[in-house]
Parts: sequence; structure tokens; C-alpha cells
Amino acid sequence: MTAKRDTSRDGFKNKLETAVLTGFKPIWNFIQSNPGLARKVNKTLTNNAILKIPTRPYPFSTMSPYTSWDSLIDRTYSGLQLPPLDWKPLTNENYIGINLTSAEKFEKNLPPIQDLEILYHKIGETKYSPKSSLIFPYFVQWFTDSFLRTDRHDPLRNSSNHHIDMCNVYGLNPKITHLLRSYEGGKLKSQILNGEEYPLFYYDEDGKPKEEFRGLPHLYTDESTPKAETFPPEKKQKLFAMGLEVERANVQIGYVMLNVLSLREHNRVCDLLTKNYPTWDDERLFQTARNIVMAEFLKIVLEDYINHITPYHFQFFTDPLAFTDEKWYRHNWMSVEFSLVYRWHSMLPDTFIYNGQKLPMPASMWNNDMIINKGLGAIFEESCSQPAAQLSLFNTPEFLIPTEIASIRMGREAKLRSYNDYRELCKYPRITNFNQISSDEKVQKELQRLYGHVDNIELYVGLYAEDLRQNSALPPLVGRLIGIDAFSQAFTNPLLAESVFNPETFSPIGWEEIQNTKTLSQVVHRNIPQGKKYRVSFYREDWQPV
Amino acid sequence: MTAKRDTSRDGFKNKLETAVLTGFKPIWNFIQSNPGLARKVNKTLTNNAILKIPTRPYPFSTMSPYTSWDSLIDRTYSGLQLPPLDWKPLTNENYIGINLTSAEKFEKNLPPIQDLEILYHKIGETKYSPKSSLIFPYFVQWFTDSFLRTDRHDPLRNSSNHHIDMCNVYGLNPKITHLLRSYEGGKLKSQILNGEEYPLFYYDEDGKPKEEFRGLPHLYTDESTPKAETFPPEKKQKLFAMGLEVERANVQIGYVMLNVLSLREHNRVCDLLTKNYPTWDDERLFQTARNIVMAEFLKIVLEDYINHITPYHFQFFTDPLAFTDEKWYRHNWMSVEFSLVYRWHSMLPDTFIYNGQKLPMPASMWNNDMIINKGLGAIFEESCSQPAAQLSLFNTPEFLIPTEIASIRMGREAKLRSYNDYRELCKYPRITNFNQISSDEKVQKELQRLYGHVDNIELYVGLYAEDLRQNSALPPLVGRLIGIDAFSQAFTNPLLAESVFNPETFSPIGWEEIQNTKTLSQVVHRNIPQGKKYRVSFYREDWQPV
Repeated sequence: MTAKRDTSRDGFKNKLETAVLTGFKPIWNFIQSNPGLARKVNKTLTNNAILKIPTRPYPFSTMSPYTSWDSLIDRTYSGLQLPPLDWKPLTNENYIGINLTSAEKFEKNLPPIQDLEILYHKIGETKYSPKSSLIFPYFVQWFTDSFLRTDRHDPLRNSSNHHIDMCNVYGLNPKITHLLRSYEGGKLKSQILNGEEYPLFYYDEDGKPKEEFRGLPHLYTDESTPKAETFPPEKKQKLFAMGLEVERANVQIGYVMLNVLSLREHNRVCDLLTKNYPTWDDERLFQTARNIVMAEFLKIVLEDYINHITPYHFQFFTDPLAFTDEKWYRHNWMSVEFSLVYRWHSMLPDTFIYNGQKLPMPASMWNNDMIINKGLGAIFEESCSQPAAQLSLFNTPEFLIPTEIASIRMGREAKLRSYNDYRELCKYPRITNFNQISSDEKVQKELQRLYGHVDNIELYVGLYAEDLRQNSALPPLVGRLIGIDAFSQAFTNPLLAESVFNPETFSPIGWEEIQNTKTLSQVVHRNIPQGKKYRVSFYREDWQPV
Repeated sequence: MTAKRDTSRDGFKNKLETAVLTGFKPIWNFIQSNPGLARKVNKTLTNNAILKIPTRPYPFSTMSPYTSWDSLIDRTYSGLQLPPLDWKPLTNENYIGINLTSAEKFEKNLPPIQDLEILYHKIGETKYSPKSSLIFPYFVQWFTDSFLRTDRHDPLRNSSNHHIDMCNVYGLNPKITHLLRSYEGGKLKSQILNGEEYPLFYYDEDGKPKEEFRGLPHLYTDESTPKAETFPPEKKQKLFAMGLEVERANVQIGYVMLNVLSLREHNRVCDLLTKNYPTWDDERLFQTARNIVMAEFLKIVLEDYINHITPYHFQFFTDPLAFTDEKWYRHNWMSVEFSLVYRWHSMLPDTFIYNGQKLPMPASMWNNDMIINKGLGAIFEESCSQPAAQLSLFNTPEFLIPTEIASIRMGREAKLRSYNDYRELCKYPRITNFNQISSDEKVQKELQRLYGHVDNIELYVGLYAEDLRQNSALPPLVGRLIGIDAFSQAFTNPLLAESVFNPETFSPIGWEEIQNTKTLSQVVHRNIPQGKKYRVSFYREDWQPV
């Protein structure tokens, strides 16, 4: 079933870049061992990742097929990295030098959406990622959910704050934050269960929403969304009150694990601050602890997480003050494209292991007993001891196939241009043959049957049809688009700005905590019963680079 | 009454900078005549003006005396360029190297606000500006009103969109914009009076607000604000429906002149676009015309207006793409300080000339018959034929003295640091003697009497106590603070961004209009009966640089 992929359209510069970054290990080790040189290289590589496409502000959003004042400032519409299909150029038929696929022809030739379901159904066994543990997709779903917030009623709109602001922990707006705060010692409301700290339950003992959480949103969008009210009592009773919609914040065990971890870290930092700054009131303790925890998680994203994604020898590190003069340092704006490159549904396997037992993945949804009974450290370790599935076509669990189809529909409603147009935007040559996208004959054949011509492939399908890059967690175009936005919208967090990222903002003791945080594992170990040691890593235990 | 000012605390670098920029005329002429060189110098001088203080984001806002996540993102609180007086430093007693005045001592020694009234009352005749015509303060009041929008109920908050977005013409938000649009040919609603175009009247013939303007806001804040409802019928009947509160948008004849001009330019551009792009619908015509008009006025601000302010030989020009890599290119955020340096109440004389008659300035308020009867070109010319008053203490018209006092109160409520602290922030040495701020003995003596020590002078008072710079419209610290924000918050307008500022956004015909716009005079002459020629200039006709 696996043929060779024709790499002639990978682009010479891209191949060279990969060869340099994945070869010459001793040279990279030398660079890494020299702090001054490492800083320069870190900056150069980060800029190189971002500057593949023109920088924000984007001239287009989902508001209109031309630029208006409102479209330039109203971020409830999502950004667009290329003009939409209904854009009618006034000056040049091409766009920033890109020979765009004919919009009329492209839209006319799109296959019916339901025909594309076949691309997601498994053929036989689940393909597993050779590199990533299950905590990797858990983490991704959780952290992207704080800034990729497409409106479920209107895929052209979003409810994002456009920052990694940990709104899943702290609430999407100050009104929700208010409901979650204990107003004592800066802490978030919490309870102790089996000797460990958790958020409060949303429902009282009679199954009614607690009065103190009135105003916490629900996710009642359409018939297909399950309503917390209707859950079986044993699940419903254990739903936590956290920053986002009750159904969303409790959706899956990975999501809950990371929320619980963040809450514990917040309350732990509060204790630390109280000890060091005994005169501070609750408000200052809360606000400063929040800033510290956000900066810690930004570091985890920019180091632990990013370095897992890339196949490079060089390990990126967080040096935010290196980027003050960069043209990409612009007001954040989440785009439709960024939302689509972060839909890693196929990375969730059909089954997972809990307490050594194989369970169907849906059993991990709205099932907080899993964490309460096992404890945070142990469930992190067990999640890290099993592989994620591989990000690719023909590998999505059945229960997520409707979500794949919804993603394709979203791309069409947003009038996104073709996969080949986005390749060109990202400095990859346009492919001319289906055997240039994937080595998998099944993928090649099905794409050919469905789309007829490579220019007709739509972005969402093309993104995940590509072979993974060697030693990378991601296929090339997904990796490139994520590199652009992950760096250019994380380093622009105001907490990392030149006048803000300092001990005065975070307090000297908080600053030290931030400096001492590089990995998710560190934060887990600060927040579990003392003396316990668990393996927490985005990597599979048995991973070996090729 | 006029003594010599002790210039020993002006700072060597500042003196040198001024000497270079105001001397050597032949060299500056040579630079200006060489486009490549002029671009480089333009960029260097602009950066030099902005980079006097640390760049945005500011770590502090009026929300709290420390940095919180909300204080970093909630722009309904105003920015602060220095930490507020109630800031308690954790790391260093000084701040970015500035030895701040002791906050406790400073607040304790502030004189009672009402005692400061004396600083604004005239002593004898109005002092006139040797340089500026009356249109200069008219223009300033109008264009700053679109982005400096302090909340009248709470001086720590604002209702600004934080951009020069011409909200006084187009409305502060889309709901208001909707009320002002005709939905025909992209145009704003208008009427013809005496053969010239004006906005519609807000009230109908019975003195009732027109149904079509329901939702247009009023400015009912406190007892002291006049209510349009209560105006005498002849004034009330002529109030125009424009973008801001009815009382505000019609407040003074200069304000109305510039709003009327903008409306005419918008509708004129719509005709031009309709002719060139006959397939466009109303929406696209409106949005594109708005973008064009905003870019035109941005150019007027960045060329005609800025060059009037400075005493330099070099004439700044709009080269927005030169600044893509600058660290000051950050999300806009209007600060309390920026709001205070733009309060040029003393530039309005007690009287003005209308139809050759001397009238008290309050007669120009809510008096739209003045423009309807005279016509736009003639009233512009007459305003440009008379001088503005001089920006200084002891020169405010009586009816604006309560506004001066309110500004001082605002500075205190925002817990602003001392005048000397802001001098140091802006790279001026701290003054050590009252004779270093002003050459006017009366100013020196009154400041000494009221404040006792130079370290006790508060920002708002110190700003306007300074002597004007030679050949400049402004005193030095006001000029410096305005240079910082005027450049760093105008060039960051998304319309001037790299991917947006091009003929595709504005249409080729609109792009040409923008290129052909440099002065207010040009826009006036496009929008008055053809063949008429009027003198329109920020300069007094008789101005001669020293």
C-alpha cells in the first residue's frame, strides 16, 4: 500500500533547510552549548519560521471579500491569510506574487462534502504516532481551546480573546473569573478529594447548578451537543466548575487533567506569594499568581511543546526580549487557517488504557471520576505511557468523523483558497501530481478519485493528507503554518513584552518560579503529593529518532 | 515682566538636537531635495521622536497600581507612561533608571486645586500665537476628539477606539454608523443648504429628534453640561446629526467645519468610486470611501499638521512602510498623559472675527448658522486669517477655566507623577529652580508661591508653564510627548500597514486621491463651489520664523 512519494515539489530551499536543521548534530550541540551563539540562532530560527508568509495585520477577514475599517478592527470575525474565493482583485490577478487557483473553477469542482467522509474512516488498525504520547494531543486540545474559539453557530465568527490567556482556567471574561475566585488569599475556589485539590463541582447534591456559579456558560448550540443537564447522574455530579462552558471544560479527561493542574499551580503560587508578600490583598495575590501561571505555561508551550513538534536538533527556548524589533510583532488575530491546522482529531486513538484496562475513547468524556479516583500524577503518567495516534487521513475515531466534516464545511463557508494556493503562500512549490502529497497509494487514489486534479484539493484535506516529516509530530504544511502562528502569537503576549516581562511584574519570587519552569513535568511534580515521581512527557517512552 | 530663563537644565543633547534641526538650512534643503536621503532622514527623525521613552505596551494603566492580566488588555482604562503614585515598587525604588519624586511627599504638598485657578486667568490682554492661525486649535480639538475620549463620569476610564478612526464623522461604533448612512451610492446622509452639502439636522421641524437618528447619543453627564433639548430654538434647529454625541459633535464652529468637510469629501469620493467601479454595491462604496478619507486625513495629520508644530527645517512626510521593523509599532493605547498634553484650551482666544465682526468665543458654540450662511470655503478662510491664542498659562478664556481645573483633577485622580518625573522620563534633566521652566517672572513667582519646590509641580501645570520653543507652536515637554504618541499611534493605523496600504485596499483611483492629498487646503478646495480659491493654512499669514 505504501509507494514512494515524489519529492520533486518539496522545494530545494525547504529540503536544504530540513537537511541543515536535522543533520550535523555535533554542530547543533556546539551551538546549544554556547549561550551567546544559541540566543542568536534561537532568534534566527524563530524569525525564519514566522517570516514564511506576510505578517499581520492581514488585509482580509471573514467579514467581507475586501478590506474595510471594520474588517481591520473587528476581531470577532476570523482572520484570513489569503483573500477569500469571492475576492475580486482590482489591481493584479495574482496576489503577492501567488498565481491563485481560479476561484470559479475551484468552487465548481469541489466534491460533495459527505463524499469526503471516506477519507477519515480507518482501514483496519489505528496508526499510532511513533513519537508522541497521548498527553500530546490532550495538551494541544486544551491549550488551543483558549484562543481558537470558532463560533458554533457561525463559523465565520469567533469568541476568542486572541491570546493564550488560559481562559479555560480563569474564565473567558472578568464576569466568569469572578465566579471562580474564592476571594481568599488570591486563590481559585477548590475542594480536596482523596487528599488532592480539585475545582468545585458545578452541581449541588440535588443535581441543581450551584447558586454561586450562576452565569457560568453552557454549550447549548445544536441538537448534537450533549447537555450537562441530561448526563447520567454519576457523571453529572462530578462536573467541575472551570473557566469555559460546563460541557466544554469537562469534555475529556485530558482537558480536565490540565485544568486541574493549572488550578493547583495557581493556588500553590498564591501560597508562595502570601508567604513572601504578607501585606498583599486577595486581588493582588490573584492577579500576580495568574500572571505567573500564564508565563509558566507560555514557557511550556514555547519550549517543551514546540521542541516536541519539530524534528530539529536545536532546542528552541523562550527569549522574548530578542524579538522587540520584528515586523511580525503585531496585534494577535486568530485566523481560520490557524484554527484548521490545529484540528488533530486523528491523534486520538479509538481506545485508551485506564488502570491497565483498554477502554473506548468516548469513555474518557465527561468522566471526572477517572482523575478523582486515580490522582493527578498517576493519570498523567498513564497517559504518557501510551501512544497518541498518528495525525493523518484514514485514522480518525468514528465519533470524531462528524467533526472532520464540519471542519471541511467551515473551510468552504470561509471561502478558503485551495491547498495548492496555501502551499505557494508558505513557500512550498505547488504540487502537480497526487504522488507528491503522500506516499500512501490509498491516499493518492482517493484524492484523485474525489478531486480529479491536484489544484482542486481543499486546504483542510490537503493538510492532513501529507506524509509526516521524518521525526516530526506533524506533516510539513501543518508544521509550517503552526510555526508561524504559534511563535508570532505567543511571543506577542503582553506578559512577555519588554516593559512587562520582569521581576517587577511577576514579583521577584514569581520571576524565579517562571525561570525554573520549562516542562509540563515540572509543574505536575509541584502539584502532587510530595515525594512521588511520575514520567510526564510528550514523547513516547520508546521513541527513537530515525 | 519677562526675565531670562535659566537654560542650564535643558539638557546638552536636547539643545544640540534643536540646534541641528533648526539650523543649517541649506543642508536640510539639500537633504529634502534628494528623495532617497530624505526617506532615510524622515525615518531617523521619526524614530528619534518616538524612542524618547520606553515603547508600548505600558506595564501600568489606571486600573491598578500593579500589572494584572486585565490591566494589560482592558483598554477602557487609560494607559500610564509612568507608574502611578500608589505604586509600591518590589524591586527598585527607582523606575527604569528614573529617581522618582517621593510619592508621599508629592501628594502631601499639592496645593488645593481651586488655588490653581489663578494660573489660568488672563492678566490683561490675550497673548496671541505668532505662528498659528485659529484653524490650528480647531483642527486639534476635532481630530483628537476621535481618540482621546476620557469618560466624563470616571476620568480613569475612556470610550476610545484608540485609533484616528474619524469616529466624529463615522460614528463611534457600527450602530451609530448605520444611522448616518444613506445606503445609496455609499454616501453619508446629507442635505443641500444654500447650494452646499451638509449633514442632516438632528431635530425635525417640531423640535423632536428625528426617528431615523434614534440611538445617536447625547452628552448628558452632569449639571454643567448643556443639553441640546434646552437650546434656544434657532440653535437647536440647526444641530447636525454626526458621529458623536449631538452636543459634542456640534460643540463649536471649528468642529462642525471639519465634520462638514469630511462628510463632503466622503460623498465626493463615493461619486468618484461609483464612476470608476460601477458594479460596486453601496456597502463596498461606503467602506472603501471611508478608508480613503481616513488615509487622507492621516496624511494631513502626519504632514500638514505635524510640520506646523515643529520648528524644524526638515518637513516630515508619510512613509508608513519605513517603520515595519520598529519596536514602537505596537497596539495603540491612549494614555492619561497623552490626553493631558492635548488640552490646548488657552489657544482659543476670548474673541474671534466672523464676517468682520468681533464676537465672544462662546458665540461660536452650537451655532451652525455661522457656516450655513457663510459657506465652507469662506469660513475656513476667515478662520485662517486670524491668529490662535498662545498655548500658555494666564491665557485661558474664562469659560474654559473650569475645564483646566477638571484636567488638574484628572491628573490627580489618575495618580500621575510629578512634572519633574515626566521630564526625566522624556530625557529632560529635572529642573532645580523655577526660573528654569519659564522666562515669565509671573509664572515663576506663582509656581513658587503655590508649589514651594519644583519637585512639587504637577504634570498638567508644568506642561503649559514652559516657554514655547522658538518657532514652535508648542512648549518643549508638550511637543516631545505629542511627538511620541502622534507618530507611534498614527503610523500604527491598520490602514497604513504593510499588507494593507496599497491600491488593492483603496482601489487604484482611491490610491491616487490619497497620493494627491497632503494639506487640509487641498481637501477644502475639492469640496467648495468650483473656481473659488481661499487661503487655508495652519500658519498665520504674517508668520516669519525668527
